[in-house]
Amino acid sequence: MDAELKQFIGKLDTLDFKKMYNDNFFWTWDKTDDELAAVFTVADALRHLRENNISTRIFDSGLGISIFRDNSTRTRFSFASACNLLGLTPQDLDEKKSQIAHGETVRETANMVSFMADVIGIRDDMYIGKGHTYQKTVADAVEKGYRDGILEQKPTLVNLQCDVDHPTQCMADMEEVIHYFGGVENLKGKKLVMSWAYSPSYGKPLSVPQGVIGLMTRFGMDVVLAHPDGYDVMPETEEIARKNAAKSGGSFTKTNNMAEAFEGADIVYPKSWAPFAMMETRTNLYGEGDFEGIDRLEKQMLEHNKEYMDWCCTEKLMKTTNNGKALYLHCLPADIEGVSCERGEVEAPVFNAALDTLYKEASYKPYIIAAMIFLAKEKNPQAALEKLAARNMPRFFC
Amino acid sequence: MDAELKQFIGKLDTLDFKKMYNDNFFWTWDKTDDELAAVFTVADALRHLRENNISTRIFDSGLGISIFRDNSTRTRFSFASACNLLGLTPQDLDEKKSQIAHGETVRETANMVSFMADVIGIRDDMYIGKGHTYQKTVADAVEKGYRDGILEQKPTLVNLQCDVDHPTQCMADMEEVIHYFGGVENLKGKKLVMSWAYSPSYGKPLSVPQGVIGLMTRFGMDVVLAHPDGYDVMPETEEIARKNAAKSGGSFTKTNNMAEAFEGADIVYPKSWAPFAMMETRTNLYGEGDFEGIDRLEKQMLEHNKEYMDWCCTEKLMKTTNNGKALYLHCLPADIEGVSCERGEVEAPVFNAALDTLYKEASYKPYIIAAMIFLAKEKNPQAALEKLAARNMPRFFC
Amino acid sequence: MDAELKQFIGKLDTLDFKKMYNDNFFWTWDKTDDELAAVFTVADALRHLRENNISTRIFDSGLGISIFRDNSTRTRFSFASACNLLGLTPQDLDEKKSQIAHGETVRETANMVSFMADVIGIRDDMYIGKGHTYQKTVADAVEKGYRDGILEQKPTLVNLQCDVDHPTQCMADMEEVIHYFGGVENLKGKKLVMSWAYSPSYGKPLSVPQGVIGLMTRFGMDVVLAHPDGYDVMPETEEIARKNAAKSGGSFTKTNNMAEAFEGADIVYPKSWAPFAMMETRTNLYGEGDFEGIDRLEKQMLEHNKEYMDWCCTEKLMKTTNNGKALYLHCLPADIEGVSCERGEVEAPVFNAALDTLYKEASYKPYIIAAMIFLAKEKNPQAALEKLAARNMPRFFC
Repeated sequence: MDAELKQFIGKLDTLDFKKMYNDNFFWTWDKTDDELAAVFTVADALRHLRENNISTRIFDSGLGISIFRDNSTRTRFSFASACNLLGLTPQDLDEKKSQIAHGETVRETANMVSFMADVIGIRDDMYIGKGHTYQKTVADAVEKGYRDGILEQKPTLVNLQCDVDHPTQCMADMEEVIHYFGGVENLKGKKLVMSWAYSPSYGKPLSVPQGVIGLMTRFGMDVVLAHPDGYDVMPETEEIARKNAAKSGGSFTKTNNMAEAFEGADIVYPKSWAPFAMMETRTNLYGEGDFEGIDRLEKQMLEHNKEYMDWCCTEKLMKTTNNGKALYLHCLPADIEGVSCERGEVEAPVFNAALDTLYKEASYKPYIIAAMIFLAKEKNPQAALEKLAARNMPRFFC
Repeated sequence: MDAELKQFIGKLDTLDFKKMYNDNFFWTWDKTDDELAAVFTVADALRHLRENNISTRIFDSGLGISIFRDNSTRTRFSFASACNLLGLTPQDLDEKKSQIAHGETVRETANMVSFMADVIGIRDDMYIGKGHTYQKTVADAVEKGYRDGILEQKPTLVNLQCDVDHPTQCMADMEEVIHYFGGVENLKGKKLVMSWAYSPSYGKPLSVPQGVIGLMTRFGMDVVLAHPDGYDVMPETEEIARKNAAKSGGSFTKTNNMAEAFEGADIVYPKSWAPFAMMETRTNLYGEGDFEGIDRLEKQMLEHNKEYMDWCCTEKLMKTTNNGKALYLHCLPADIEGVSCERGEVEAPVFNAALDTLYKEASYKPYIIAAMIFLAKEKNPQAALEKLAARNMPRFFC
Repeated sequence: MDAELKQFIGKLDTLDFKKMYNDNFFWTWDKTDDELAAVFTVADALRHLRENNISTRIFDSGLGISIFRDNSTRTRFSFASACNLLGLTPQDLDEKKSQIAHGETVRETANMVSFMADVIGIRDDMYIGKGHTYQKTVADAVEKGYRDGILEQKPTLVNLQCDVDHPTQCMADMEEVIHYFGGVENLKGKKLVMSWAYSPSYGKPLSVPQGVIGLMTRFGMDVVLAHPDGYDVMPETEEIARKNAAKSGGSFTKTNNMAEAFEGADIVYPKSWAPFAMMETRTNLYGEGDFEGIDRLEKQMLEHNKEYMDWCCTEKLMKTTNNGKALYLHCLPADIEGVSCERGEVEAPVFNAALDTLYKEASYKPYIIAAMIFLAKEKNPQAALEKLAARNMPRFFC
């Protein structure tokens, strides 16, 4: 076993993450600091093994089920890649091709697709109050199915984005931050700005800004949430951010002034989202089946957005950050001025200068997902990593 | 090798199923009693190996093709699970994405997708006289392709539901019955009711009731087919049921009285279907391209159904069964009163009380499909099972 | 190692194909004669191993991404089969389910789906000047991603049909020709006719006739391109054909007379395509977003086609070929008179007589694709083949 892998295993030995075994991953704030550190460490270890052409297949067969209730490219492929990396065959439940319309219940479907499923990944971020509830229902159903002896194994649920959090995204973002600054120990006192930015497109989910403030306040950084008046996120997640900051020795503050937020920042995450209050109205309209009302509301949101077109991550703003070179984060795809839209979240030169770190940031996602699965499946992850290294099966033969 | 596996192999040694090698699986009544017993036994053996974390991958590579001409959740995932369990990669032929519209023939398509296919599963249950014919055409085409040296292996066809039979469903149902009553030897004299039940939804296929009476009359049970006047199934399948019952020492009777049927029953299978005569008319309209006519007919069917709203599996009816606790079977999804519809096939308390056995029933399907493939591929299934046990490759590593 | 495999390896030892390592496959005319010979040889070697139940899985995990911007059956399944044969999991990027509509750029998407991708196959043949450009953009993006350390491996691009060439099809066609005539050495002086034929269907891509004349002029054959006045292909590809013919000691000629072309032919490839000039107009209309104009143009094309209904591969014409039995090639599906259309590309008796060779021709495609991937991935393909034979892992176990 090489020295680097030994280090990862040594790191895991210092952490307590016993409760992750056979558990699900809904929100980062459900997890302890040690548990999150375990995810980062296993992600790095799996990447290290793959880069050294050592297979990390812990499954000889088995399915990884995905359910996407919203379009997706990178999360879809990240999930498929993570499953494949561990030996699971990705299988998408396309609700349009299913009999759900014929009266299946969520609980029933969850069990029916899970007879050979080791993991279920769900993206359901469209309606406030719905996404997490749906994921929880699925997880409870298969948990019960497992306990009742219907399922031979308990599929782990991985939240691929709900209405509240987007943990695989934010953990990948965070891993980029950690590697960029050379370790968690260097983050204390860094200023990170989660800022709203103008977008001409549809009302984007709140789960990214909420996930970012819920996660990134845990590392002693000074986290600033900036948005125009009225573009609040869910108050519960602000509360979590506040508590995290207090506990970690950092801070969590809010401002309606983008320029003030960017001043001296080390990390910026400028991104559009829809106001929470409007998202709640939208959910109510959905509950009433008022799809015309939803259309009207979305048009109204876009009109409303237009009042804040100046909330753009410009070259000028970037110059005001620490040394003029804050790390620019985005979950992608971004609304780039002059590329995908006339006015948008970011100026093209800012975006283009950041391409390498942006793509690197995205590249962690498959490993983060794989690490979440690995920690839920392996009772002794350190031993499992050792055994994989000892088995030494090549990922690519010859 | 453990004792349980030894028992399965011992059981297989007593059966004659040589003809299943390299053959297809269309209808249960094509198969001898020994052949069906072999499917049940191999299904149990594969499940036993998997539960003991022993890989049952007999394929290192190869595709399992599925063609779904009707929506599906459980059959789709059961087929994918079965393929995965044996090492095949599921690959769906989505006819909308294919060039079939560009003038391919069935025979051509069948060969074109089969160069590396070891199995083809087809669901085509929409039109009387069409589904089986299509499956037979595909099977004949690849058989010829194999004989002519175009295909290196002969893909086995597995009927995932046609207009006549639904063998993977009914075999899974039957395996639940066998396990529930502790063995085939305990079924003699049991009363099983295949009953029509009211549904407010579309005209459901006949293949389940037909498959049930065609299969379950082979075990010495007293099988009763109950339906309102006019809701007959295909006469050929009734004929098969009659012959089976005579041969097995059981009985096959019909009634238009649901209450009478349930009286003292050990097993009940209440489920909606469309009247055969109307399904034939529907096929003719389809042949004439009269889609408006089909719409009209379907509305008419639903209106007609409404006359029989009292055909519901109620708590009251269930109390009249043997000891008031008949085994409740359903292929799912069911039309549950107050859950998926106002009036439907079953009352919610009856359905909910049966959830565990219902899900268990469904859980056999992947193994039944895998067993059908296994028996078509392995020349000596007993030896193959022994070798899998000896290879002792873990399904889940560490 | 058996004698036949030894021969394949011996053949490879005589060829120079070093540059294929880590490279893409866009057009056959990018490749040297040795490189094409290597593809044919590796394809045969992989087929030989599979036929002898020896696994050719060189990947323990990894994805094979496909992007189909046009419908496809055989290419879709050929690609999936090739990936599966080598151990990669096929994963389709369905652009409708992706966030491309949300403003992703091609470069971004290419990287986002490629974190664990070893190969990307693309079909994009709808618009002149677009398909190849798109493929090149994707290949450049992942090449850069690999160089910048974002991707751990460089995905190889395989052209599954562009606006210019259809190399996996034409190489499969060519392999059928080689095997049919017992080796490349027997092709000198053979007359091959790539002929336009009437089709009542949509404006078919030019990539097949272009690919055929660009490839098949390299083997010393007398290649004739026959089409009605105005149905020209891209002039660049004719230029390539001309140069190839001169170099190989064969010839490349053109005619507007189908009967003259067929006279004494050894191989005929009668197939419809749209006139290049009209395809260019179509691209311009597309650029202008004039979809009504495109519809109008397509109707005009079909009207125009009707003037050449007599361009059909009839029994009578076939009798005028060498000994009346020229090898009939087609990429499938064909427009068969009296089967898929009233008047079309070929008479049913001609097509039916050729079924076996036609299907055989198609059966090479998965192996051609697999060989392209193999040569791009294995630094020393001969050693890799030897090691696969020595590993002797069964494709099918027991």
